[in-house]
Parts: sequence; structure tokens; C-alpha cells
Amino acid sequence: MSDFPPLKNDTFLRAARREPVPYTPVWMMRQAGRYLPEYRALRAMDAFFEVVRTPELATEVTLQPLRRFPLDAAIIFSDILVIPQALGLRVEMVKGKGPHFPEPLAGPADLARLADPDVRRDLGYVMEALTRTRHALEGRAALIGFCGAPWTLMAYMIEGGGSKTFSASKTWLYRHPEASRSLLDRIAEVCAEFLIAQIDAGAQAVQVFDSWAGLLSPEAFAAFALPPLRAIADRVKAVHPEVPCIVFARGAFYALDALADSAYDVIGLDWTMDPREARRIVGTRAALQGNLDPCILYAEPDVIRAEVRRMLEAFGPVGHIANLGHGMHPDHDPAHAAVFVEAVHAFSRRTS
Amino acid sequence: MSDFPPLKNDTFLRAARREPVPYTPVWMMRQAGRYLPEYRALRAMDAFFEVVRTPELATEVTLQPLRRFPLDAAIIFSDILVIPQALGLRVEMVKGKGPHFPEPLAGPADLARLADPDVRRDLGYVMEALTRTRHALEGRAALIGFCGAPWTLMAYMIEGGGSKTFSASKTWLYRHPEASRSLLDRIAEVCAEFLIAQIDAGAQAVQVFDSWAGLLSPEAFAAFALPPLRAIADRVKAVHPEVPCIVFARGAFYALDALADSAYDVIGLDWTMDPREARRIVGTRAALQGNLDPCILYAEPDVIRAEVRRMLEAFGPVGHIANLGHGMHPDHDPAHAAVFVEAVHAFSRRTS
Repeated sequence: MSDFPPLKNDTFLRAARREPVPYTPVWMMRQAGRYLPEYRALRAMDAFFEVVRTPELATEVTLQPLRRFPLDAAIIFSDILVIPQALGLRVEMVKGKGPHFPEPLAGPADLARLADPDVRRDLGYVMEALTRTRHALEGRAALIGFCGAPWTLMAYMIEGGGSKTFSASKTWLYRHPEASRSLLDRIAEVCAEFLIAQIDAGAQAVQVFDSWAGLLSPEAFAAFALPPLRAIADRVKAVHPEVPCIVFARGAFYALDALADSAYDVIGLDWTMDPREARRIVGTRAALQGNLDPCILYAEPDVIRAEVRRMLEAFGPVGHIANLGHGMHPDHDPAHAAVFVEAVHAFSRRTS
Repeated sequence: MSDFPPLKNDTFLRAARREPVPYTPVWMMRQAGRYLPEYRALRAMDAFFEVVRTPELATEVTLQPLRRFPLDAAIIFSDILVIPQALGLRVEMVKGKGPHFPEPLAGPADLARLADPDVRRDLGYVMEALTRTRHALEGRAALIGFCGAPWTLMAYMIEGGGSKTFSASKTWLYRHPEASRSLLDRIAEVCAEFLIAQIDAGAQAVQVFDSWAGLLSPEAFAAFALPPLRAIADRVKAVHPEVPCIVFARGAFYALDALADSAYDVIGLDWTMDPREARRIVGTRAALQGNLDPCILYAEPDVIRAEVRRMLEAFGPVGHIANLGHGMHPDHDPAHAAVFVEAVHAFSRRTS
């Protein structure tokens, strides 16, 4: 790894460690994606998972938003569903509908169908894309690796795609608690190995996306989703104690205290969480990331700037990584994303 | 109204007023609906809005769950989208997809398209169904009327149906704040008139469903959704101070304190809210309703009973109306709903 270009912009890593920064660093969830015409042009030629699996293309897509905006972090272009794929499940991306598993897990007996993956081999394309991207970035921004959280991946593996109520996967928790725990632990092991391999390949921070955490009651989250989430950070930190780990458990407002007690360095907030209240609960135990409502990017630039200013004041200057509270939407205007990024830098510099 | 049969079971109304009860009253959101074979049989002959608009049928459907389960409240069978219909918008129920507005509001200029409804005339079928049902109930259970909340109705009127991100309606808030307020106030006025008319027709309590409250940031909820919600309760209470008003703002965990400060007597909780934490925030300002995860009804009876016991202990015996944290699902087993209802009665009687 010693041949990577030196990091010239360490604001993201410093904020993740709650160290002083000259301005609040900023990146955007799904900053590489369909809202960018250059991404749509590339996708016109290749299918989604083709891009994910081709390191040259994944690197190119990862860098696209960095060419437009002065972002302080890049996140590798990939998908949380590469782990279910490595576990042997087929996943297709259906245009306009999202991911689809032709053969989801129908019951605990199907756990026997799951493969025992070697992530460095089976998901080697992600590691290769990270190494390439780390070089190509030339130290302009930190590089983030990621994976889906065990509960969220389990939910997809059972539902076979998105769902209104996710009742099939939640039913597993209540009908098959032991099989659920066994599946979650198995996924957590793969997640940890995968994140460690991503760091070895060049990731300077890692984020775990628990996109469907908010579907669970506080008890179910504590009983099922939290233990494997904690295990992942423990295992990654044991190998790479210096690399910031970020957790984004969307909708799990009730879990802030428990997450602050875990090994994660940064807690991502969705836009429904009040930054001041989050600070009150988390204190100095973790940095916070977030959390502008992505819909604010549909507003006029002046409104975006006013909302950014309010967000920055609410989080304060220490231990804050500015971001949206959820991913970019395909119909967002890149010019408005630029306003968001620039406003974070301008206002945080002014007030620091 | 004096010719209505006397209420023989006032546990629901007493709990709503935080008065002592012999056992915790219980009802289930969407207790009348597709999970009941007798409902599906009736719907095989008539379209959804046909049932809603025919008082005999609406009464029949309202009573169906009461024949199966010892529920302490009936909720009139209707739909929150009758208000957009009264405002002049066409709404169709598309099988398997939910509501669809062929001509949603495209922009503020479309507000001129909205009619000025006379709810007692335009929605008279709801009032007639309430009067019929109140007689037919013979005092066995309290009768609840309801409406959708202004923000939730505005969201449907702009999106034209369900949506993944509700970005069109949220964009209105940020791009057209004045037009949004004007629309919300207009809907709130209709809601209040409608609830007052429902009470006049026989409703013994009313519930306002803000199903999409949780899509909003705390600031946006406070700025847009809360004022019209408060206005509705203020207006209803000015005319019918003795009738309990319930608010169910799904996902708006951050709004508990503000809602407790409003004129609502009862706050409905979705399943992500911790009952003890809700009690801590709300105190004695309101009764609480909820909040078992509907997915628990997919579990074995013993698991349902254990979860009901935990829920009852968490809420305590005073000022609690047991319910699910969201509506019944179409694939729920009525036998499991029976287990839920019976467990609430059995355990709350035992522990009181």
C-alpha cells in the first residue's frame, strides 16, 4: 500500500476522528449514479452489474462526481448485493424496479443453498477497483469502501427485492429466530472479511449500510440487527484500528445510543433525525454524518444554502461529515448538488 | 343522537381519557379488510369505492371483524382519499397497486382546480354509514370516525399515488412553501368539518391518519404538517370537547412532545417507537395507542402472546389503547388476530 499517492485532503478522516478541520468535509450518498449524464452515458453501453464487476468502469464511475464537485471523499461504485451474489444467490437489476432475486430464500432449509465465499477471490473486482481508484484519486479525497449490513442483506435475500412491508423477512425473525441469527452471523462474517479486504486494497474508511434497519421495532433491532453490526466493526477494528468505520442504520433513531457504544467511529443520520438531539445522545463517543433531506436539492439554490447553513449550525464544527440523509435521486440536478457541496465548504469555513 | 343504543362497553373511551379500565381496550388498524374472507367475498361483487360509498356495505364491512373478535372499538370502513375526491380529484383504486389519481396536482396553479366541498352533502355516505353502524353495534363497542391528515392527503394529491421517495410533494414544500401552506390549510378545514359531521352522525371518537409524516424532517414536519394537524383538533374540540381525538403520525417519532402539547387526547405510536420512551416524553398529557409490529401476527400464537405481554408491561395499565403499530396486512391469518385481541384482554385483566 505504500505506493499509494499521499492524501492531500485529510478533512474527511480528521472529522471522522473528531479532530479539528479547516472546514466541514462533505460527500453525498449515491454521488456516483443516474443523476449524472456521464453515468447514464456509460450505463447505456453496459448493464449495472457489468459496471460493478469491471474495475476500469467502476473506477471511472467512482471518479465522475469528483470531477464535478470538490468532494472530500469518494465512495467506490459497487452495490450492497455483491455479498448475496458471493453467497451464491442470483441478483438481477431490473430497469425501473430495482434488484430482483429469481430464487430468494424460501425458508431455513434454503440456508444449505448458500455458498461459503472467498471474498478476496469472489469479490476481487471490488478490491481491484479500490486499488485503481485510490491511485487515480491522487490523494485529492479519501476513498470509502462499503458493504450492506447483515439485516438489510438478509431482508433482500428473503424478499427477493424491495417490498412494501418486508413481511417475509421480518416473519423469519419471529418464526425462525435461530435460523435468522445463524444467517445474520454468517453474513456478518463475510461483511467483516470483505471490509478488511477492501481496506487492504486501498479503502481509507468503510461504511456499513443498514438501509432497512428502520423496519424493525427497537426490540427486534437490538435482538437481531445490532449484534452482527457490532461484530463487523469489532472484527475490522481488530485488524485495522486506525481506519474509520461508519454505520448508517436508516430509520433506527432509537439505536443511536447503542451504536455510539459500539466500535463504529461515525454514525450516519438520515434526514428525520435532529442533529442536536443526536449530539445530545451520542456526545463525544462518535462523529456524525449527514443529514440534509435529499428533497431539499429540488429547491432553489438559496433555499439549499439556507438549509445547509441550518444543518451546519445544528451539527457544529467538530466531528461532522456533511452528507445527505439518504442517497441522491436519479432526477436530481447536478447543478444543485454543486450548490450543496459548495455551501458546506463556504459556510463551514466562514464559521470556523 | 339520543336514540342511539347506550354504550355497554366504554373501555376504549375511558382509556382515551386516561381513566381506570377493567382491562386494556383493543382494536386493530385495518381490522376490516382483505385479510378477512368475508370481506374478500363482498369485494368480489363490488369495487372498493363502491363499498365505501354504499352505507349498507360500509356498515357490513365495519361490523365483520366485530363478529369475529371481542374488539372494544369499531372504525368506520372508508378511505382517507374521500377528501381529495370531495375536493374534486378523481381517485381510482388499482388492484395490487393501491390508489391512483389520473390527474394529480402538477403545480400551484392547479389549486384553482380544487372544488369547495360541502362535506355533509359530498361525503354524506360516510355519515350515513356511521349512523347505521352506531345503531347496529348496539353499544358493544365504541365507533371511531377518521380522516387523512393534511400533509398525507397533500402528498397523495401531488404524487398521484404511492411513491418511493414522495419527492414531488416534498419538493412543493421547499419550492412553493406558500402554496403548500394554503393547500394544507384548505385541507385542514375540510378535515375538521368532516370530523365534526362524523361525530354528529354517531362517531364516538375520531382519528387523524398522518401516514406519511415520517417522510418529513423534524423541521419540515413542524413547519408544514403540524400546524394543520393542530388546527383540526382545535376546531373539533371547540365543537365536541368530550369526544376523544386521536392522532397517528406514522414515523414522526421526533414529534411526540409537540403532539402531546396539542389538543389530541390520544397519540398513536407505530411499532418503531419504544412505549416507555414515549411515556417519558408524553407523560400524562395524552393517552397512547399501539403499537405491536403487525409482522408479529405472522408468528406462532405463543410468540404473539409473549410480545403482547411485553407491550402491555411497557405501556402500563393507564391510558393505553392496544393496537398494532400499523394496519393489518392482506395475508394475515384471522386466527392470529384473534390471538392478539384475546391476549390483550387476558393479560391486562390478570395484571390489573
